[in-house]
Amino acid sequence: MRLYLYDIIKHTKPRMKILPFDKQLIETIATTHDTPFYLYDQEGIENNARRLLKAFSWAPGFKNFFAVKATPTPHILALLKPLGFGFDCSSYTELLMMERMGISGSEINFTSNATPTRDMQKALELGAIINLDDYSHIDFLLTLGEIPQTICMRYNPGALREGNVLIGKPEEAKYGFTREQIVSGYRVLKEKGIKHFGLHTMIASNELNNDYFIETAIMLFELAVEVLQTTGVAIEFINLGGGIGIPYRPEQEPVDYQYVSNGIREAYERILSPYHLNAIRLYMENGRVITGPYGYLVGKALHVKHTYKDYVGLDATMADLMRPGMYGAYHHITVLGKETQPSDHRYDVTGSLCENNDKFAIDRQLPLVERGDFVVIHDAGAHGHAMGFNYNGKLRSAELLLYKDKTVKEIRRAQTPDDYFASLYW
Amino acid sequence: MRLYLYDIIKHTKPRMKILPFDKQLIETIATTHDTPFYLYDQEGIENNARRLLKAFSWAPGFKNFFAVKATPTPHILALLKPLGFGFDCSSYTELLMMERMGISGSEINFTSNATPTRDMQKALELGAIINLDDYSHIDFLLTLGEIPQTICMRYNPGALREGNVLIGKPEEAKYGFTREQIVSGYRVLKEKGIKHFGLHTMIASNELNNDYFIETAIMLFELAVEVLQTTGVAIEFINLGGGIGIPYRPEQEPVDYQYVSNGIREAYERILSPYHLNAIRLYMENGRVITGPYGYLVGKALHVKHTYKDYVGLDATMADLMRPGMYGAYHHITVLGKETQPSDHRYDVTGSLCENNDKFAIDRQLPLVERGDFVVIHDAGAHGHAMGFNYNGKLRSAELLLYKDKTVKEIRRAQTPDDYFASLYW
Repeated sequence: MRLYLYDIIKHTKPRMKILPFDKQLIETIATTHDTPFYLYDQEGIENNARRLLKAFSWAPGFKNFFAVKATPTPHILALLKPLGFGFDCSSYTELLMMERMGISGSEINFTSNATPTRDMQKALELGAIINLDDYSHIDFLLTLGEIPQTICMRYNPGALREGNVLIGKPEEAKYGFTREQIVSGYRVLKEKGIKHFGLHTMIASNELNNDYFIETAIMLFELAVEVLQTTGVAIEFINLGGGIGIPYRPEQEPVDYQYVSNGIREAYERILSPYHLNAIRLYMENGRVITGPYGYLVGKALHVKHTYKDYVGLDATMADLMRPGMYGAYHHITVLGKETQPSDHRYDVTGSLCENNDKFAIDRQLPLVERGDFVVIHDAGAHGHAMGFNYNGKLRSAELLLYKDKTVKEIRRAQTPDDYFASLYW
Repeated sequence: MRLYLYDIIKHTKPRMKILPFDKQLIETIATTHDTPFYLYDQEGIENNARRLLKAFSWAPGFKNFFAVKATPTPHILALLKPLGFGFDCSSYTELLMMERMGISGSEINFTSNATPTRDMQKALELGAIINLDDYSHIDFLLTLGEIPQTICMRYNPGALREGNVLIGKPEEAKYGFTREQIVSGYRVLKEKGIKHFGLHTMIASNELNNDYFIETAIMLFELAVEVLQTTGVAIEFINLGGGIGIPYRPEQEPVDYQYVSNGIREAYERILSPYHLNAIRLYMENGRVITGPYGYLVGKALHVKHTYKDYVGLDATMADLMRPGMYGAYHHITVLGKETQPSDHRYDVTGSLCENNDKFAIDRQLPLVERGDFVVIHDAGAHGHAMGFNYNGKLRSAELLLYKDKTVKEIRRAQTPDDYFASLYW
């Protein structure tokens, strides 16, 4: 049942990855579901989520608010809720999803920018933790009605972190308050009668360097002390943001939750405890690392073409998985049932869009691919289906959940032409 | 009513562009339609389409097959049909749209790659002109049932055009037959009893160099002569492809239809006439240049933010217009009612996605933007709404058509949360 994947041509010492399904299971699924489809692995997601929580079990009130945008599918979110996860929402529609799932209050973190009024009102109505993106949003929030008891603000360190290559260039990102603004923000909010305060940042995405997360925590802990000393506001929770990456390439190493947690714990005790801030709750908002490695896009080779290069044309397209076309992102690819064959053929693996970017891989070493082979695109469980579009009239694929007992359930049906035509007048 | 747009800071001699609407009209529309919305200009589209047809009126049976993927909205396609346009489809769903609009037979060109069986069958059923992408598709087509009388093939010149910077690198594109394959293809199809033959290429996109199109025609005309001499097949139509670009930047010049047509006519007479091929019909499949300049994305400034840079946050996002975020593409931006004010402020113009790429413009000179200003994003009439997605739970915007008499009609409604949730199980 379990297969070991490797790429003997390009990587001498790749990570080993265990697939939770085999060819026989996919063939069975394909008798009732057209390819392409997404397949999520319950066991993988849950074990991984538990590992993160366990690593941070020392931290007061630790919570990971899963970034709903990564995998906005209720049956996936429903796996995480009983484990104690919260949910990070960024839009009205995501908030509606929470409402429909019976999730509210401090289970929701609402982080948004250029926020529409309707979105902010819905977040207030659900009692979500409001995470303000900008100084002017303080006034915007206060005009909308009853002032919430709890407010969080998003910090953007800007050029204060210039030179730290891990953080990138936060001064060119649209998000957050400057240091001066955020300190002033706590002062103003305190005067307005706000009771409970949070501090947030999110300045990187898909980061694999363990130390980055520790440095971010240090930055926030030091800011919390400064806020206490200059404004008298005792911050009650710090949201370290998300951004933990996944090793899309076989030669990359995953982030070590325990190492990160140990480093953050040391900083927490060193920086916060002397100021009696040692009840500050720690939050994170990881999405990608939770579900990403445990979702697979399964397509079929419709066509093998030999012109100036060799091409494998799949039924899956960029409409199913945007990341390679949009970011040039690497996604590992295997051919089902051929995992132990040598990767001695070189292909461009493409979709069928009339769009040059519609390639899942360029010059990828794979075993011989034949028409009808199932092709598995790895690490598609986050920012995968969620980013799909309908360009070229392509319909978005179904999502299936593989339970621990190896039963499979459809958790999102494939789009139909009627879905595509639903908003049109003829 | 008509306003002249200019950008006095960056461009000393920009093109002048006449807006078909003014602030008053947009304010009226906004009383019944939430921003953002797309607004298309009937008069602009039709006049432009007629100009293209007029320039090529010398060419036997000239037809432009509008690339449906550019603007797959029936009311836009319905403007083009009575002018004599055909339609280029690339998928099952686009073919269904044709069927529902009563368009069939040689009004449809079907160009696809890695083609699913269902798509090819529907194209055959509608009697579309089948444009094969690959040699192996000959056998694929012949297994599907009755052989069509007419078949076209897509040529990819590969390295034969190496060194011609205008053409890019066709040898790295997934599309089309090699020269050897296509010549062999005509021979095989003739043996199978096919009666009518076409030749197609499409090797560039958004090209503004007039001579490029003439060179492509010369390449195809010479190939038609070679095919006649080596196989005895007299090609009956040549599809020059599309790819005519639009001047997204104010300092760029549009393609001169008449210049291109004159150059192609000279080549046609010089190359084809001596071989009595002077009844060959000429086709094109332009989409972008037909509707692109005559569609506008109209959003509202929700938020003006001052941190390390100055930001204008719109209600429109990358979910409405993907090109800047995906390709780094330039789209001209103006602030409604402020067209004559100096562009003396510098902004990043962003959407509200939690996604760094969600910027319509970076460091753009604009007049002072205030909350509530209508912001117009130009040249969004092709590959605009069509490429929209639902990332972050964003809902896709409505499309409106501005008629010559300045009345406005909704031709696609905005998505609702119910649309977004339609395929989910709870």
